[in-house]
Amino acid sequence: MRFSPLLSELIDSLTCLPGVGKKSAQRMAFHLLERNREGALKLSTVLHNAMEHIRHCSQCRTFTEKDLCEICAHPQRSESGVLCIVESPQDVLAVEQTMAFDGTYFVLMGHLSPIDGIGPEEIGLTILESQLKENPVSEVILATNPTVEGEATAHYIAQLCAKYKIKASRIAHGVPVGGELEYIDGNTLTHAFSGRRTL
Amino acid sequence: MRFSPLLSELIDSLTCLPGVGKKSAQRMAFHLLERNREGALKLSTVLHNAMEHIRHCSQCRTFTEKDLCEICAHPQRSESGVLCIVESPQDVLAVEQTMAFDGTYFVLMGHLSPIDGIGPEEIGLTILESQLKENPVSEVILATNPTVEGEATAHYIAQLCAKYKIKASRIAHGVPVGGELEYIDGNTLTHAFSGRRTL
Ligand SMILES: [Zn+2]
Ligand SMILES: [Zn+2]
Repeated sequence: MRFSPLLSELIDSLTCLPGVGKKSAQRMAFHLLERNREGALKLSTVLHNAMEHIRHCSQCRTFTEKDLCEICAHPQRSESGVLCIVESPQDVLAVEQTMAFDGTYFVLMGHLSPIDGIGPEEIGLTILESQLKENPVSEVILATNPTVEGEATAHYIAQLCAKYKIKASRIAHGVPVGGELEYIDGNTLTHAFSGRRTL
Repeated sequence: MRFSPLLSELIDSLTCLPGVGKKSAQRMAFHLLERNREGALKLSTVLHNAMEHIRHCSQCRTFTEKDLCEICAHPQRSESGVLCIVESPQDVLAVEQTMAFDGTYFVLMGHLSPIDGIGPEEIGLTILESQLKENPVSEVILATNPTVEGEATAHYIAQLCAKYKIKASRIAHGVPVGGELEYIDGNTLTHAFSGRRTL
């Protein structure tokens, strides 16, 4: 017997969060009711606003609640002339956290995957091409994932850049800093060897 | 740089959930934005309703959005004459899931803890006493946790029951069904031996 239909509904709803099963949802519901109703009410409001207002940046396609995201709207960054291409907004966040890049981004929201019917149009390459034509940059950095699809996507965009005589580069793949050789997979190690640099 | 203040706010807000750190919150926010905006809007509404409307049952103190929870309001259950005393609404849920109990509950919302200033009044024992006085039951089952505080609380309530000549019983503690003796802690094993029954 459910002693509170509303509580059951709350537990069900919480399982829409990734990685949250029935047991965790129960723990969350009771925690919020007993100890943090204020935080839960805040979360309710922010969730609503985020889902209603966050769309894609009209220029780089990352998530933003404005027409242009804060990076595209930043004059120094758009004047840098360097465009970094990534698969997802999460990747933008990861690169931003390094604070090592001060250009702008273009977010594919996926990668080429002919089997799933995802071609150049679906990952925004028509938009990217017209941007490159109208507003040529000095360098395009291809930061798609080091997977088969990510590599194919990078290769496709490199050809697009060649057409407009724009320099395209690929981020380096190799042994992570602090990583130990014996624990690295063979594929990464192969990349690390073929990408070796003279000291 | 934060490319979307609203997205940053969403990530921050999600960390109000127990067990959710910054990294999980990021994953949740992106998952909802990319794949389940509808579920997130539903969650927003349910969270708001639950925090605004869920209070304590006026009789048993468990969580409910009504004056009387569905268990207290159920005629057959309140007529059973058996009252189970637990520490929290989660415990009610756990017992209900066994479907082995068809009486009513009284939820202490804690346990006696003199060090923290939690006495009989704070865990509702004044209310419980007046209920026992006005509406005597045939048996009180003490299902507080098998901790020092839980045992002390059970002992205190047993004395209260004795005062009104009401039978009080304690749930059995021992080896969990399916548990292997070698992995059970000594304390539990001691309880299992002292609580042994003749076959
Ligand atoms: Zn942008
Ligand atoms: Zn009740």
